[in-house]
Amino acid sequence: MNKELLELFQQTRKESLHICKPLEIEDYLLQPADFISPPKWHLAHTTWFFEAFYLSKKEDYSEFDATFNYIFNSYYESLGEKVLRSNRGNLSRPTVQQMMEYRAYVDKKMMDYLQKDELTEKEVEVLEIGIHHEKQHQELLYTDIKYSLGTQPLQPPYKKVFNLDEKQQLPHKWISIDAGLYKVGYDGNGFSYDNETPQHQVYLDAYFISSKLVTNAEYIAFIEDGGYQNVLLWHAEAWDWIEKNQIELPLYWRKIEGQYYNYQLSGLASVDHNLPVNHISYYEAFAFAQWKEMRLPTEFEWEVACNKFDYGKRWEWTESAYQPYPGYKKAGGALGEYNGKFMVNQKVLRGYSVATSQDHARKTYRNFFHPDTQWQFTGIRLAK
Amino acid sequence: MNKELLELFQQTRKESLHICKPLEIEDYLLQPADFISPPKWHLAHTTWFFEAFYLSKKEDYSEFDATFNYIFNSYYESLGEKVLRSNRGNLSRPTVQQMMEYRAYVDKKMMDYLQKDELTEKEVEVLEIGIHHEKQHQELLYTDIKYSLGTQPLQPPYKKVFNLDEKQQLPHKWISIDAGLYKVGYDGNGFSYDNETPQHQVYLDAYFISSKLVTNAEYIAFIEDGGYQNVLLWHAEAWDWIEKNQIELPLYWRKIEGQYYNYQLSGLASVDHNLPVNHISYYEAFAFAQWKEMRLPTEFEWEVACNKFDYGKRWEWTESAYQPYPGYKKAGGALGEYNGKFMVNQKVLRGYSVATSQDHARKTYRNFFHPDTQWQFTGIRLAK
Amino acid sequence: MNKELLELFQQTRKESLHICKPLEIEDYLLQPADFISPPKWHLAHTTWFFEAFYLSKKEDYSEFDATFNYIFNSYYESLGEKVLRSNRGNLSRPTVQQMMEYRAYVDKKMMDYLQKDELTEKEVEVLEIGIHHEKQHQELLYTDIKYSLGTQPLQPPYKKVFNLDEKQQLPHKWISIDAGLYKVGYDGNGFSYDNETPQHQVYLDAYFISSKLVTNAEYIAFIEDGGYQNVLLWHAEAWDWIEKNQIELPLYWRKIEGQYYNYQLSGLASVDHNLPVNHISYYEAFAFAQWKEMRLPTEFEWEVACNKFDYGKRWEWTESAYQPYPGYKKAGGALGEYNGKFMVNQKVLRGYSVATSQDHARKTYRNFFHPDTQWQFTGIRLAK
Amino acid sequence: MNKELLELFQQTRKESLHICKPLEIEDYLLQPADFISPPKWHLAHTTWFFEAFYLSKKEDYSEFDATFNYIFNSYYESLGEKVLRSNRGNLSRPTVQQMMEYRAYVDKKMMDYLQKDELTEKEVEVLEIGIHHEKQHQELLYTDIKYSLGTQPLQPPYKKVFNLDEKQQLPHKWISIDAGLYKVGYDGNGFSYDNETPQHQVYLDAYFISSKLVTNAEYIAFIEDGGYQNVLLWHAEAWDWIEKNQIELPLYWRKIEGQYYNYQLSGLASVDHNLPVNHISYYEAFAFAQWKEMRLPTEFEWEVACNKFDYGKRWEWTESAYQPYPGYKKAGGALGEYNGKFMVNQKVLRGYSVATSQDHARKTYRNFFHPDTQWQFTGIRLAK
Repeated sequence: MNKELLELFQQTRKESLHICKPLEIEDYLLQPADFISPPKWHLAHTTWFFEAFYLSKKEDYSEFDATFNYIFNSYYESLGEKVLRSNRGNLSRPTVQQMMEYRAYVDKKMMDYLQKDELTEKEVEVLEIGIHHEKQHQELLYTDIKYSLGTQPLQPPYKKVFNLDEKQQLPHKWISIDAGLYKVGYDGNGFSYDNETPQHQVYLDAYFISSKLVTNAEYIAFIEDGGYQNVLLWHAEAWDWIEKNQIELPLYWRKIEGQYYNYQLSGLASVDHNLPVNHISYYEAFAFAQWKEMRLPTEFEWEVACNKFDYGKRWEWTESAYQPYPGYKKAGGALGEYNGKFMVNQKVLRGYSVATSQDHARKTYRNFFHPDTQWQFTGIRLAK
Repeated sequence: MNKELLELFQQTRKESLHICKPLEIEDYLLQPADFISPPKWHLAHTTWFFEAFYLSKKEDYSEFDATFNYIFNSYYESLGEKVLRSNRGNLSRPTVQQMMEYRAYVDKKMMDYLQKDELTEKEVEVLEIGIHHEKQHQELLYTDIKYSLGTQPLQPPYKKVFNLDEKQQLPHKWISIDAGLYKVGYDGNGFSYDNETPQHQVYLDAYFISSKLVTNAEYIAFIEDGGYQNVLLWHAEAWDWIEKNQIELPLYWRKIEGQYYNYQLSGLASVDHNLPVNHISYYEAFAFAQWKEMRLPTEFEWEVACNKFDYGKRWEWTESAYQPYPGYKKAGGALGEYNGKFMVNQKVLRGYSVATSQDHARKTYRNFFHPDTQWQFTGIRLAK
Repeated sequence: MNKELLELFQQTRKESLHICKPLEIEDYLLQPADFISPPKWHLAHTTWFFEAFYLSKKEDYSEFDATFNYIFNSYYESLGEKVLRSNRGNLSRPTVQQMMEYRAYVDKKMMDYLQKDELTEKEVEVLEIGIHHEKQHQELLYTDIKYSLGTQPLQPPYKKVFNLDEKQQLPHKWISIDAGLYKVGYDGNGFSYDNETPQHQVYLDAYFISSKLVTNAEYIAFIEDGGYQNVLLWHAEAWDWIEKNQIELPLYWRKIEGQYYNYQLSGLASVDHNLPVNHISYYEAFAFAQWKEMRLPTEFEWEVACNKFDYGKRWEWTESAYQPYPGYKKAGGALGEYNGKFMVNQKVLRGYSVATSQDHARKTYRNFFHPDTQWQFTGIRLAK
Repeated sequence: MNKELLELFQQTRKESLHICKPLEIEDYLLQPADFISPPKWHLAHTTWFFEAFYLSKKEDYSEFDATFNYIFNSYYESLGEKVLRSNRGNLSRPTVQQMMEYRAYVDKKMMDYLQKDELTEKEVEVLEIGIHHEKQHQELLYTDIKYSLGTQPLQPPYKKVFNLDEKQQLPHKWISIDAGLYKVGYDGNGFSYDNETPQHQVYLDAYFISSKLVTNAEYIAFIEDGGYQNVLLWHAEAWDWIEKNQIELPLYWRKIEGQYYNYQLSGLASVDHNLPVNHISYYEAFAFAQWKEMRLPTEFEWEVACNKFDYGKRWEWTESAYQPYPGYKKAGGALGEYNGKFMVNQKVLRGYSVATSQDHARKTYRNFFHPDTQWQFTGIRLAK
């Protein structure tokens, strides 16, 4: 078992560097909004995680640089003072080069221990969480790089030829699910986050769920029917958000001489009518569903039906608020800060997206964001 | 049937004036925070509701003052421009006297129509909603007056002798509920809001729920154990709220020479250890439950068990986010703006409080507020 | 001398009440912006001034209410804690009636002392400052009432028939002043503020100053020539202010079907082309002068020339920043907080306006406001 | 004459690169506060200035990159849309390398024209302004780099061995100046900014001015006497600034175990008691002078006396607001935006500092900043 984990560890660490390869050194520092972290910070923080939760427990480990704990801790209040999130872009030091040396140092030490030790159960758990944590940050690397380049005046492409896996969808049909008691949540043997457990039963009324994500063509129809101007389609807080930010189009879209364009990782391009709409906030997803006189599925409706449709192109907003499952216990200590403390004011997204690490997909996986979040690869599936 | 409704209408309209009787004219304008509305505005807005949704449909009705629609509309975007919520306290005109005349005029007109007409089904519905709407505002009168007087430097009492119904609670015991399928939501014949429907089934795991609300004595133990300083007990957003607002005690509490005092509608007084803790935000309720190593009930756990315990002293925070029930349809037109558009970022509270109009209580009633709300009469019931 | 002062005291106190006579009780609480104080506060604060600086020095004086020192202190940091300026409108208590009793009590006590005592030099000084302080607040009563009523949706008039002294101006001519050394500042025997002293010499180059204030007709020409849209006419900070507040017209102006209207204390009315433009910020005055290819006078150019023209309709913006005169010493103790601590980031205005108490006018008088201030009765005189 | 200018041009361009030599690529992007610009931006913007105001007037010039006009314009509203100042740090592209190529391209083109052309008078003027503009930005490079490195958690030194010219001051004496008429402002033949003209006369009362800047030792005495806690020493707006930002020490100072340290470009070090205090806002300079029962000189007192004392270590705050001289005319076109539009809400500083380009010093030079500015190399000279 050590061996598989070890390979997964190595492959994961390599992948993060691979994602950053097209970047210029200057790009590693970008933080154009508070919710964005600079690529340098992602690479260092995921490394710090292994140092703080794994290596630092070893008596003979000596840390690479004592100041990094303060600098690359993210949100673990219980692990001491940390740099304000909004100041991550103000750290020019350590340099990218020094951060790369830090990664190499930690990788080397991890491999040394992983190769020689019999891992305790706790260590396996920490290692698995560390790997999955880094996979999450790989997705954030894509979303944050896209935002940091796509909101610059020159909108430089990340890579001139670059395609996330955007193959076409199958035709739409309505999938019908009967009323009844269903089991939801994780009970497998592999890795899962604490928020997916315990498995439990829910009762669902009969419902229909679409086999296909809403396309750009459908969303354009909403725009052109005045969807962004019709207050009755929106939540009260959504309307405030629309007005304050003067939102009239999805993130990264522009209308130039009557045509719709959107920024892609390969640069600015015409909106492809057949692709699923992308970078949609929950507020927009809800308003679109209202306009269609349908609704979004709950997270359990989604989970129960998901074997019957294709998913994995977009994170899919559900109507469900992010809340603990019955009997949920959060982990003790600093790791306990991981999921539970975000269980308020956020909506659950299900599935995964073209930017998600493939091993990261799991039908019980619960992603969560505030309802105004747009910079993730998010889309809309309808239910009724 | 007209007769009962008519009496309820009259009694409700009278009650609003009764609540305001101890006020000075100056008090009618107070709006010390954006979430507070001045008493004058409450009295006028509840009147406007009957004018806008009932009287204005009558061909022979002539309105009291055409400008009032603009001034006393609250949040109905679809009914035209309105005064910014935060500017309600800046309206000295109409005067209190003119507003009273407006009330009298509308009451007179309403009685005229109610006495002579055969009410249509739609009219009965509007009338019922209008009455319940006013009862809600009666509770807001208490909460807003308490806030407006209690946060002034001189903390004037609302009435020197005044007691909401604060009789003692019965001793604590754990009520045990079996796992199973339960029906929740409203299916009666009387009045209910659209958000309580449709009735539907939910599956609940077995659970225990306390027969008694958390008392001030218990809450003081939490305070004195450093509850407000222990980051691990709080949601991430709760901790930001604590830090930004430097919160160390519940709203209206002060610690003077080692003793706890709180502002009551009858003035500043020692905290009564036996009473249920009051003016608690969801954030605080959750942190308290964490500290107890228990949790808050969901809204359905509460509804299924509520016949087995006493309630009605405090609005009780539940763990449930405010979301539509399966199959929920919001009403058409302006009335449709009533509940549905608030179904994001809010938590459900169940029961009712000592400040609630008695006829307003209903075991399926879903109250909702943002998780940082403190100025309502809110408390804590534990589950496990 | 006691007698004259005593009469001035009585007349001044009476005048403040006279100004408030047309108000409804509700109007006494209005504070629609932080820079506005409610009429009740003005009446109480000017009373508090006599209590704090005069009566409280008397051994046998017993104060009306010990809490009022905290409530009606304005900005005297050295006299202890005070209510946040922005919370003045949240004080419903003491009521208007109680505040009136406070005024009567203090007036009675003042008269008792003034009639029986031989006043010390210090007491005369305090009394004079107190009277002039109240006259300043009388002007603020007009400006604040105008703002509080004029920005309400219904724009109620203060008094349906009401004219401040708006007689027409004489025709324009250029007054020529020779270069030379001039004395400026106060050296008389009567009352003056510390900021007008010491008298000193300044050297002025030759200049021309207009005999007439800029009229509404001239200002409309500026508006219609795109003055508010031409960035080159404005200071950088002015342009930020224009953009942030979307300013296109002077305060209280509206354009309705091609016609200009402005709110007056007697209600909304057509703009009178012949009157001097009113409620102009320094930013606007400067931009207008740029547009005319002229400039504003300095405060010393104004003072040296003022005997040769009519003034007293508008406070007149000068190009001079508010700074201490050479050799300026601020008064000791709390009274020393009066003027000196505002000597940064403000511009000097000279003359007086139709809203100013007549006895308050003095050609060396230095009024001062931030350059974005609009709610005073301010206008433009050009120089070149 | 072309030759001298040409050498000055070359030397100036080289010096900017020299200042940036110790930086890492990552440092070129830093913008930790809105008032800071990243080094890359300074280098590009000073280059853009020559392109926009000189090269672009040449018919046969083809620009390096058409997008740079938008990106590296600073505040010239009349030259078209520009990147928000606060977004300068979010531009990773062009890269540092590309910006260096831009500099080289513009330098080459400039040299070509300068060597072959007979310069028009207008061109000489633009060239001189461009050179002085770049020298100003060289000083900003020092101040911005110091801020960007000194406020990072690790406080990396700019260069481990680095001394700006901090030689000791001569002993203090009071310089006495007689009352009289003095000429101030620029009338020489060399370069000056428009705001230093026209030369004109001012009348000054007799005064004393110190020969020596206030030292760290003297400033520590102010700190330890509670200067930062004594409200009576401060302007009202200064006190708000102190409270809002919790200021207790000058910028870059820390107190560690009773000792004072400050960040220098060579890293953190003990405060040297003999050096002139540095990084002082006008608010602090004024409060210090109040505490000493003295005052700051006016800009004219400074100019008239400056030949009698040593200056050039710190920019010296004066009591004078930044205002136009009598008869001041701002230049036409975009260059006219250079100085005049900032003439409000700022204070004049005189002299120059150890971070100023030497050729940039001129006794009539008027520097100006808002009164809360700390990150410049600013100090205090007293007068009485």
